[in-house]
Amino acid sequence: MEIYHGDFASKLPMIKEAIDACDFMAFDTELSGLHRPGNTQHLDSRDFRYNELKEAADRFIIVQFGLCTFKWDQPSGRYFAQPFNFYIYPRGMYIRSGPSRVFHIQAQAFEFLAKQAFDFNKWVYQGIPYLTPDEEDVFVENRRRLMSDNIPDIQVDEKERGFLAAAVETIQNWVDKGHKDQNYVNIEARNAYQRRLLYQEVRNKFPDLSTEGRRGFIRIMRLDAKEQEKRTNEMEKQFQSDRTEAVGFRQVIDWMTSSKKPLVGHNMLLDVAHVIGQFIQPLPDTKEEFKVLAHNMFPIMVDTKFLATCVPELSEVITGSTDLESLRFETTRHMFKNPRIDLGGYYMRYAADKAHEAGYDAFMTGSVFIKLMSYLYEKEHGPFVEEEKEKDEDQVSSSENSEDEEEDTQFDDDEEEEVYNYGSVHVPLLDEQQQQTALVARVSNKVSQARTIYRYFDFLHPEQDLINKPNTFFVQAKLQDIQAHLDVLTQPYGSYITEQTDTATIVAFQRVTVPVQEIVDALADGLHKALDLKVDVKSAQEYNFIGK
Amino acid sequence: MEIYHGDFASKLPMIKEAIDACDFMAFDTELSGLHRPGNTQHLDSRDFRYNELKEAADRFIIVQFGLCTFKWDQPSGRYFAQPFNFYIYPRGMYIRSGPSRVFHIQAQAFEFLAKQAFDFNKWVYQGIPYLTPDEEDVFVENRRRLMSDNIPDIQVDEKERGFLAAAVETIQNWVDKGHKDQNYVNIEARNAYQRRLLYQEVRNKFPDLSTEGRRGFIRIMRLDAKEQEKRTNEMEKQFQSDRTEAVGFRQVIDWMTSSKKPLVGHNMLLDVAHVIGQFIQPLPDTKEEFKVLAHNMFPIMVDTKFLATCVPELSEVITGSTDLESLRFETTRHMFKNPRIDLGGYYMRYAADKAHEAGYDAFMTGSVFIKLMSYLYEKEHGPFVEEEKEKDEDQVSSSENSEDEEEDTQFDDDEEEEVYNYGSVHVPLLDEQQQQTALVARVSNKVSQARTIYRYFDFLHPEQDLINKPNTFFVQAKLQDIQAHLDVLTQPYGSYITEQTDTATIVAFQRVTVPVQEIVDALADGLHKALDLKVDVKSAQEYNFIGK
Repeated sequence: MEIYHGDFASKLPMIKEAIDACDFMAFDTELSGLHRPGNTQHLDSRDFRYNELKEAADRFIIVQFGLCTFKWDQPSGRYFAQPFNFYIYPRGMYIRSGPSRVFHIQAQAFEFLAKQAFDFNKWVYQGIPYLTPDEEDVFVENRRRLMSDNIPDIQVDEKERGFLAAAVETIQNWVDKGHKDQNYVNIEARNAYQRRLLYQEVRNKFPDLSTEGRRGFIRIMRLDAKEQEKRTNEMEKQFQSDRTEAVGFRQVIDWMTSSKKPLVGHNMLLDVAHVIGQFIQPLPDTKEEFKVLAHNMFPIMVDTKFLATCVPELSEVITGSTDLESLRFETTRHMFKNPRIDLGGYYMRYAADKAHEAGYDAFMTGSVFIKLMSYLYEKEHGPFVEEEKEKDEDQVSSSENSEDEEEDTQFDDDEEEEVYNYGSVHVPLLDEQQQQTALVARVSNKVSQARTIYRYFDFLHPEQDLINKPNTFFVQAKLQDIQAHLDVLTQPYGSYITEQTDTATIVAFQRVTVPVQEIVDALADGLHKALDLKVDVKSAQEYNFIGK
Repeated sequence: MEIYHGDFASKLPMIKEAIDACDFMAFDTELSGLHRPGNTQHLDSRDFRYNELKEAADRFIIVQFGLCTFKWDQPSGRYFAQPFNFYIYPRGMYIRSGPSRVFHIQAQAFEFLAKQAFDFNKWVYQGIPYLTPDEEDVFVENRRRLMSDNIPDIQVDEKERGFLAAAVETIQNWVDKGHKDQNYVNIEARNAYQRRLLYQEVRNKFPDLSTEGRRGFIRIMRLDAKEQEKRTNEMEKQFQSDRTEAVGFRQVIDWMTSSKKPLVGHNMLLDVAHVIGQFIQPLPDTKEEFKVLAHNMFPIMVDTKFLATCVPELSEVITGSTDLESLRFETTRHMFKNPRIDLGGYYMRYAADKAHEAGYDAFMTGSVFIKLMSYLYEKEHGPFVEEEKEKDEDQVSSSENSEDEEEDTQFDDDEEEEVYNYGSVHVPLLDEQQQQTALVARVSNKVSQARTIYRYFDFLHPEQDLINKPNTFFVQAKLQDIQAHLDVLTQPYGSYITEQTDTATIVAFQRVTVPVQEIVDALADGLHKALDLKVDVKSAQEYNFIGK
C-alpha cells in the first residue's frame, strides 16, 4: 500500500494496528545516495567503515521507506504480509516554525531509482514529512511560545516609530469608544517586522486585548473569558494536529521501536544507520555508541544476508548470489516450502513483481527471512511432523464440524466462517514472555558488512570471526609495539589495514599475490629480529580454526 | 521549447542557429537550493557574500536552464523571441568513464519548484548531462587510453593464475591451428578483474591479436589491416558521439560565451555564479578573480533588476516591486510600448503564462530588458520619431508595390512575401563592430546584490555607490588602525560589518535605532580621543553626495 502525505494521517491507525498485531516486521529503504565517490579500496578498518556509515547517514536521506508486517494466521495456517510503501520528503516550508533542511544527492543513486521507475514527483509533491525528537522539541517550544505570547521584545527601528504611534492611536480610539460599533479593529502591517512590532506593542500597552494575524493586517479584539477559552482550545487543537503532521513519519519508527518485535532487513546496516540518523538523532561518533543506540531501539534485528552467508546450515544450501532477489528465488525451492505467506487483503499491488520499490523489497525480505528461519528450525529440531499432524487432525475435525453445520451456517455471518487451512506451520520467533527464542537469539543482531576483514558486524559484541582469506594475518602483539616495524616488513606486499583486539593485531593486505606462508614467515621472522622476541603470526585460517 | 536528453542532439543545430542569429540572449535558472539555512543577518560584507555565493555554487546545482534569444526582424518591425527550456541532470551512470556526482538539495527549494508545477520526473529521467572542460579532458584521456590499449599492468592475484594459464592455452591452441575453422576465440570472464587481466595478458603475450569485450566473455580476433582500420574508425566515431553526448549542455554555454552577445538576466549574480561553477570550473577563491572570469565569459551582462533599481530614469517611473513578474507587468504600460516582441514560430507553449519555468522567465527577462532599454534610449535621444517616419514611408511604398503586383504574386511562393510591419523600432545594443553602444555600456556589468551596503555588484570595478541608509557610516581611516576602538565605540549600537576602501573604512550596523547624527558624533569624538587625531566620519547620504 502506497502511503502519501495527503492520506498519512488517515492511514496511521491501520499502520499502528499492523505493527501491534504482527509477529515480525521487515523493512527496506531507498536512499538519495550511498557514499562519497572515489573509494576503491578492497578493505577498510571497522572504524573507517563506521565513519563512512556516519558520513552517509549525515548527508544522504531515505526517500522511500518500505515496511512489511507479517502476522501468523492460525485458522488458515499461513502468514499474512502487509506491505506499506512510504515516500519520505523532509518538508520544510510546509511546517510552520519547522527547520530548513539541506541534504545530498548522489546523481547515480537517482539514476538507479529511475531504472526502477521511481516516481520523483510523488516523492517531492506527496512525500511524508518528519521531525526528530529534538526537532519536535524545538517545534513544540516555538509554538508554545507563540501561543502564550511569550516572545522577547525586539528593538524598534527609528523609521517604524511613526507606524507604531499611529497604530497605538487607532487602537486607543477604538478602546475609548468602548468598541460598540465594531468588536474588533484591524491594523495594516506591510511586512513581518511591522507585524512583530505590532504584536509586541499590543502585548505591552494593551495586555487585555487579543491579536490575530490575518493576510496583510492584524486584528485586535477584546475577548471575554468564554471566547478566550474557546480560542485557546481551538489553538491547542490546531497545535496538536500540526504537531502530529510535522512529526509525521517518525511516529511509524517510534511504534516499530516500542513494539520490540523482531526487525528484519536485508544487508541492513546502512538502513538501520539511516533510520536512526534521519528520524532519531545524528549518529554518535563511535561505532560502540552506535551499537548501543541501535540495539536499544531494535533489540532483535535479523539480517537475511547474514543468514544466507554466515549460518552454516543455510550457506551450505544457498550456493548462488545472496542479493535479495536471488534469495527470493532460492527460497521458492521445495526445502523452503514452509511457511505459506500471502499478501493481506488490500495489497494486490505487489501480486506482480515490484522489485526495488521499498515496500516490495520489505515484503521479499520478510518472506525470505521466515522461510530461512523455518528451515533452520527444522534442521535443529527435525521436521515439523508432530505439529503438522496435530494440525491436520484439528483441521479434519474442524471441517467435519462445519460439514455438519453447513446447512445452518452457510449464510449466517455471525457464525465462525469456515476457513481453508493451508497447513503451513508457525515458526517460533518469540516465547510467551515476548523474548526471542533460542532459534532467533542464535542469529540476531549480527549483520553483513562488506569491505572489512570480519564476517559480520555484531551489534552486541566486538567482531571476532575473520573472513578466511589469504590476505589476513593474526599477529600476537599490540599494534603500538609493532607499527613501525610493520610498515617496513609489509612493503613487499602492498598496502594493508590493521585491526586491534585486546592483545593482538590483525594485519590484512588489500591484495595478496604471494603464497600465504611467505608472508607468515616474513612477519614472524622480521618481528622476531626487530623486537628480539618471538611473535606468533597466524593466517586467518589457522586463527579461525583455533578461535573455535 | 522544452529540450530533453533524448532530443538534445537533434535540437543542437537549431539552438546554435538561434544564438548565432540573435541580437541578445536572456537566461534564467532554477536551482536545487539557495544557501545554507540560518543566516538572518540584514547585512554582510562583500567578501562574506562572495564566500556564500561560492559555497552555493559549489553545493547546489541548476536543475533547469532557460535561454531565450531575441532577434530583430526588420521586415516585420519587431523582435522574435525563441525560448528554450532545458532540464539539466548531472548524469553519472550514463556516461562511461564519467564522474560520479554528489550535490545538495535544500528541501524548501524543491518545495518552491513543486509550487510552480516543476516536473521532477522529467528532471531525473530526461535531464541533459554535462561535463566541465576539465571533466571533458579526463573523459577524453580515459577513452583514448582505453582505445589505444595503453593501460598500466596490474598485479595478478595468486588465485587467478590458473584462469590466466588456461586462457593463454586456449588462445595459443587457436593460434596454432591457424584459426581456420573459426576466425575468433571466446574466453569467458566472470568479473571485471578477470576481464582486465585477460586484456593485459593478450596485450603482452599476443600483441598482434585484437580483443573485444562482450557480455560475459572476451572475443579474441586477428584483424587484417583493413579490418583494423574499419574497427578504428568505428571506435573513433562512437567516441566522438559519446563525447558530444557527455559534454552535453555545456555546448550551449560555450556557444553563448563565444557569441559575445549581450547576456541578460534578472537579479543574475547567483545565476552567473552557478553557470560558471557547474559547467566551467569551481568558482575562484576571491571575488576579484570571479569578476575577471565572469567578464571574460560574458563581456556584456545586463541585469534587469539593476536597471529597474539603479538607473534613475527607470527607477523614477518603476515605483512598485522589482521582482520579475512585477517588471513584466510594469512594462505593459504605454511608455514601454516599444518594441513589439513576438514568440518565434514554434513557441506557443509560452503564449499562456508559465512563470517560474526557467525558459519562460528568460523570455520575460529579455522582454523587460529590451523595453527598458528602448525607454532609456528615448530618454537619452528623444523619441524614435525620425526612424519611425522613414519606416512608415518604406512600408507605405512597399505596400503600394505589392498592391500593384497583387494579381501576379498572390500565389507565387518564390516572390518576397508581403509582410505586415508592426512599426516598432530596433534598439541599438551593438554597433557595427559588435561592441556595445554607449546606451548599453552605461548599464552593463553591474548587477543587483542584496544584503550588502552597496547599491550593486560591479563586474568591472570595486563597488562604490553606497545604499543611502541611516545605518551606514564612512570613516576616513584604515580599518587596521581603528578596529579595536570601533569594537568599543559601537557597542551601544549593536552588531556591525565593515568594508575597506583604499584609504577609509565603511561601518554599517545591522539595525539602527537612534538618530544618525548621534552615531556620527559618537564615532568621530570617540576616535578623536582614542587616536588623538581628528577622524572624518560621514553618514552614507553625505558620502554619496560628496562622492558624486
